[in-house]
Amino acid sequence: MASEIHRASTTAPVNIAVIKYWGKRDPKLNLPTNSSLSVTLSQSDLRTHTTASCSPTYTHDELILNGSSQDVSGARTQACFRELRTLRKQLETTNPSLPALSSMPLKIVSENNFPTAAGLASSAAGFAALVRSIANLYELPASPTELSRIARQGSGSACRSLFGGYVGWEQGSQPDGSDSLAFEVAPASHWPTMRAVILVVSAAKKGVSSTTGMQTTVATSSLFPVRANDTVPRRMAEMQTAIQERDFESFAKLTMMDSNSFHATCLDTWPPIFYLNDVSRAAIKAVEAINHAAGKIVAAYTFDAGPNAVVYFEEENEGIVAGALRKLVGEKEGWKGEAKSDDAVVEKVVKEAGVVQELLREGVSRVICTGVGEGPVKTDEHLV
Amino acid sequence: MASEIHRASTTAPVNIAVIKYWGKRDPKLNLPTNSSLSVTLSQSDLRTHTTASCSPTYTHDELILNGSSQDVSGARTQACFRELRTLRKQLETTNPSLPALSSMPLKIVSENNFPTAAGLASSAAGFAALVRSIANLYELPASPTELSRIARQGSGSACRSLFGGYVGWEQGSQPDGSDSLAFEVAPASHWPTMRAVILVVSAAKKGVSSTTGMQTTVATSSLFPVRANDTVPRRMAEMQTAIQERDFESFAKLTMMDSNSFHATCLDTWPPIFYLNDVSRAAIKAVEAINHAAGKIVAAYTFDAGPNAVVYFEEENEGIVAGALRKLVGEKEGWKGEAKSDDAVVEKVVKEAGVVQELLREGVSRVICTGVGEGPVKTDEHLV
Repeated sequence: MASEIHRASTTAPVNIAVIKYWGKRDPKLNLPTNSSLSVTLSQSDLRTHTTASCSPTYTHDELILNGSSQDVSGARTQACFRELRTLRKQLETTNPSLPALSSMPLKIVSENNFPTAAGLASSAAGFAALVRSIANLYELPASPTELSRIARQGSGSACRSLFGGYVGWEQGSQPDGSDSLAFEVAPASHWPTMRAVILVVSAAKKGVSSTTGMQTTVATSSLFPVRANDTVPRRMAEMQTAIQERDFESFAKLTMMDSNSFHATCLDTWPPIFYLNDVSRAAIKAVEAINHAAGKIVAAYTFDAGPNAVVYFEEENEGIVAGALRKLVGEKEGWKGEAKSDDAVVEKVVKEAGVVQELLREGVSRVICTGVGEGPVKTDEHLV
Repeated sequence: MASEIHRASTTAPVNIAVIKYWGKRDPKLNLPTNSSLSVTLSQSDLRTHTTASCSPTYTHDELILNGSSQDVSGARTQACFRELRTLRKQLETTNPSLPALSSMPLKIVSENNFPTAAGLASSAAGFAALVRSIANLYELPASPTELSRIARQGSGSACRSLFGGYVGWEQGSQPDGSDSLAFEVAPASHWPTMRAVILVVSAAKKGVSSTTGMQTTVATSSLFPVRANDTVPRRMAEMQTAIQERDFESFAKLTMMDSNSFHATCLDTWPPIFYLNDVSRAAIKAVEAINHAAGKIVAAYTFDAGPNAVVYFEEENEGIVAGALRKLVGEKEGWKGEAKSDDAVVEKVVKEAGVVQELLREGVSRVICTGVGEGPVKTDEHLV
């Protein structure tokens, strides 16, 4: 018994918001100033794989990410550990025959299948996997919604990575955050043809962290309240309708407008915060040229707190959207399939967007081709 | 008598707003959605020189700018001609001994002392000079305030170029625009130490015209109404107080925040409008580094509808502000005086802002060193 090691593993996905989370009304509990909505991306391309283990032989809580030991003393990680142990403790109290896992130290080992250097927000997948794997280890009967309350305390947007497909995060109104939860807008199977190309842009320097940035925006931007209180609630409703109806044009326009609105409030922050650079703007011009050449909206850009462009499109338009982007960006690591170049629409885009081609070729370091995907998946491949 | 030519000449200044005009509530009359405030720049550095002439021998109205004939059939130019002729006609009716200038064709010849290629909004100085020179020709008793109502119909911001120093433009509320007028906040002599360096940034391509851009913002930005209705009115009052008290720190912070607010509403426009590029952002970083090194706000950036940075500072800080900018931007056409390089603050800025030095060196094509200046000046140097 002294050498017993309990373990459970999961993988968890990255999500990219189409209605952005920016601003906390409670920084300790990660309670947001507005609801948000994201698309969960396929774990074939981007995932965190995490094994949670506990043992009476362990001496202290430990978290190893991509081979290096992480600080677990932070309030966010501690909140997740504490909440999950409390739930396990309740089970153990109800059923004393269960092993007392809640009192054993935890060892969490986590690995991403994508380069950290890509500058992709990995904390969402990371905290979702951490919470989901410990919940599995503790055999908690908690639903993804209940776990989202816990994962949110680790990293706000992590709550959305507990679901696949199209996921909302209701801001809630309770001071304790009990109603600030993720929910499924639609499963991936409802609209499985959603694809995404991520243009990874090399930034000269890491920008302002989102945690610091969003609180400065809340404190100083005179335009921010109208975004949080009026614009986002309206667009949340419109976006859910667009997803229910698989209306790509509405989905795309809302996605682009919300990204612009979010970055506008960053620029209106004092001192101003800039995440978009000339390469990001070139990606916007490229998407505008694609939509113009196609004669309708077939592609949507969105940018998180960094210069990387995420371009959503439907599978049926992969030839023109990914085809045109590939032609503009050039051959980089990450493209899938054969390059197409004979399409008339693609030729039209390159003609119209030729002015931004050099910026994209020089500024995009790699691409990731992916699509909508499932939520966390339990696995028997253990890292401990 | 058949060969008589009547003429009058003036020079008029450029103004650069510190509370921006963006959005028309009446596009025909150029009535703005919010009040604005600018600093008139010295005509030694930037001015339009215009001669208005009329003669019974002329066959048609004509406008020649920098040697090339301009279209005078546009509604804006026509509105100015019509309003001024109406005022002249009233004088002639009252005093029939006056020559009937109002019925003679006009020939206006105009020259800028700065390169058009600099991308500086010359329409403000241009229409101010046009209106002022015709008013001189017609010997109208109109005050600058009355003329501002006419110049506004030519180009909105032109109304502010009829005054020197610190100039407001009250948005007004009358549908006919009769109360949408420029007014003097303070003469140049009240705060004569205000200096400006303009970093002229070479843009790959001319952006969206301000006339088109501002109306798209009004129509599509969800953040714009709060700027026009709440943010600007508050800052207009604060800015006037800052100018009355010669409080540079308040003036500077309001200037920078208002520029950011304006560009934020451009980004929130659909489709989004970008005027700032990576070089503009590098100029912002440079100003932030200067203020950081100085330990207080000694410099303020502002950007109109283009990538050029205008940096305001007080004369006593010329050594560190212009000195640091010169060190970062490098030797370009337009710097005045000797380059300073031994200042400790300047060295600190270069150390902190070194990352943007390359962008500034490559992206700034020339500089203009100027300062606050006077309103239109009558001159006997005629161009006709």
